[in-house]
Amino acid sequence: MVVGIGAGDPEHLTLQAAAAIGRAGVFFEIDKGIADLAALRATLLARHARPDHRVVTAPEVPRERDPADYPAEVAAWQAARARAYAAMITEQLPAGAVGAFLVWGDPALYDGTLRLLQGVADRTDPPLRVVSIPGISSVQALAAAHGLILNRVGEPVLVTTGRRLAERGMPPDVPDVVVMLDGRTAFADLPDTDLDIYWGAYLGTPRQLLVAGDLRAVADEIVATRAAARAEAGWIMDTYLLRRRGAAEPAE
Amino acid sequence: MVVGIGAGDPEHLTLQAAAAIGRAGVFFEIDKGIADLAALRATLLARHARPDHRVVTAPEVPRERDPADYPAEVAAWQAARARAYAAMITEQLPAGAVGAFLVWGDPALYDGTLRLLQGVADRTDPPLRVVSIPGISSVQALAAAHGLILNRVGEPVLVTTGRRLAERGMPPDVPDVVVMLDGRTAFADLPDTDLDIYWGAYLGTPRQLLVAGDLRAVADEIVATRAAARAEAGWIMDTYLLRRRGAAEPAE
Ligand SMILES: C[S@@+](CC[C@H](N)C(=O)[O-])C[C@H]1O[C@@H](n2cnc3c(N)ncnc32)[C@H](O)[C@@H]1O
Ligand SMILES: C[S@@+](CC[C@H](N)C(=O)[O-])C[C@H]1O[C@@H](n2cnc3c(N)ncnc32)[C@H](O)[C@@H]1O
Repeated sequence: MVVGIGAGDPEHLTLQAAAAIGRAGVFFEIDKGIADLAALRATLLARHARPDHRVVTAPEVPRERDPADYPAEVAAWQAARARAYAAMITEQLPAGAVGAFLVWGDPALYDGTLRLLQGVADRTDPPLRVVSIPGISSVQALAAAHGLILNRVGEPVLVTTGRRLAERGMPPDVPDVVVMLDGRTAFADLPDTDLDIYWGAYLGTPRQLLVAGDLRAVADEIVATRAAARAEAGWIMDTYLLRRRGAAEPAE
Repeated sequence: MVVGIGAGDPEHLTLQAAAAIGRAGVFFEIDKGIADLAALRATLLARHARPDHRVVTAPEVPRERDPADYPAEVAAWQAARARAYAAMITEQLPAGAVGAFLVWGDPALYDGTLRLLQGVADRTDPPLRVVSIPGISSVQALAAAHGLILNRVGEPVLVTTGRRLAERGMPPDVPDVVVMLDGRTAFADLPDTDLDIYWGAYLGTPRQLLVAGDLRAVADEIVATRAAARAEAGWIMDTYLLRRRGAAEPAE
């Protein structure tokens, strides 16, 4: 089972995910070395898991963060992980037992666990049955924290990465763009003068930070806030909506 | 409070939303005339609301479904609703009490309730404090039901409407497109020959229907399944992912 646990707030867990945590015998954890993430998992296990549950921690297979050939590097990393996890699951999961991976946010958004387990399922005998349980994503936590509707009436929304925003800029025909995985503050380098930004870091956690406004006016503030917070916490996760002003929203 | 309740499965409710339902004194309901939607709301109130909660039902302000000038029609409709709701809330919500709107899926995606209440807040004295609580959207229910990750590695995802897909076709540079609000089965008219579709209707409900495959091979089946299901249930809500084959996914 791949269980989405929300992006930081233990109250964002769904009833379905809480029940799934209560059914699992073994939890497989990938050690990302981030204390706050491990703390959320521990909170959820303490609240919702069976007293006799077991936790198996797999060390994260190391990975280059900014490789020249991104897809090839991801593929090699995924194959190494699939081998490691097939072995781990075969050894540690008793026949008939339910194993669970607790995944940050929603398993369907910029998370490789489902792909990993589909690779693992082919390497185990009998093949693993993989079930996905949705969770509140950081995109939704961002929208809720700012009181936002992500789309304009009848208009689309693009969800993309910082890397891609840096490479391609804002799409001309999509007024709302959600950016994830932006380690390079790509928003600060955009030439556009007609954008608002709704930024959030550590969403759903006690560290939550929010900044919103005209991108030109607040970009420096966000870059500085981000750097300071990251230095203090030792890590940061942030996401933001870029909204083209004046596009397609009917006046009321 | 605007509370996302998930898109059909009562177990998709978050703990935060369940607690919020337990705190609210008055529930404002918009009658959409769809029995299954009203049934989900009733189930959630029976399970999570205070015994002394009140339900105030507002008749839906009528609206043209396929107007020539879409944004203008939406704007007129929204203004009429804001007036009606400001009056209703002023009359029915005791000072200091918490009022709740239960919203299908996530309030941040193709739902007007937050916009409506921001319009209402300006018309009430003291101004209403509007809080948004995220919920599992139909997009996430679709992904979970098919065991999908919505994005390819490092690639973006577009969320759009059937109307817009019919007008513009598939974007050339986005390999994954989620389509909502498609009453016209726009997928069936696409010229593309390299698309897979992952379709779901009544997601999360006992009526749930899923079809997946090469768009060319399954489009007719989906159109027929959709028409039959709609005739039987009296309504349908469906959404789907269009995925360009061969794009940017590393082999394992
Ligand atoms: C590997 S992706 C995982 C996304 C996750 N599956 C989800 O649904 O939110 C990590 C990215 O998600 C975003 N993110 C996740 N949690 C966040 C949080 N609590 N606050 C802000 N951004 C977050 C950041 O953009 C981060 O770079
Ligand atoms: C007005 S929008 C509301 C979306 C909602 N706020 C959400 O987050 O899912 C309605 C559209 O959502 C999709 N939808 C909502 N519930 C659904 C369900 N249970 N199954 C399939 N599609 C659904 C359909 O595309 C439908 O036309």
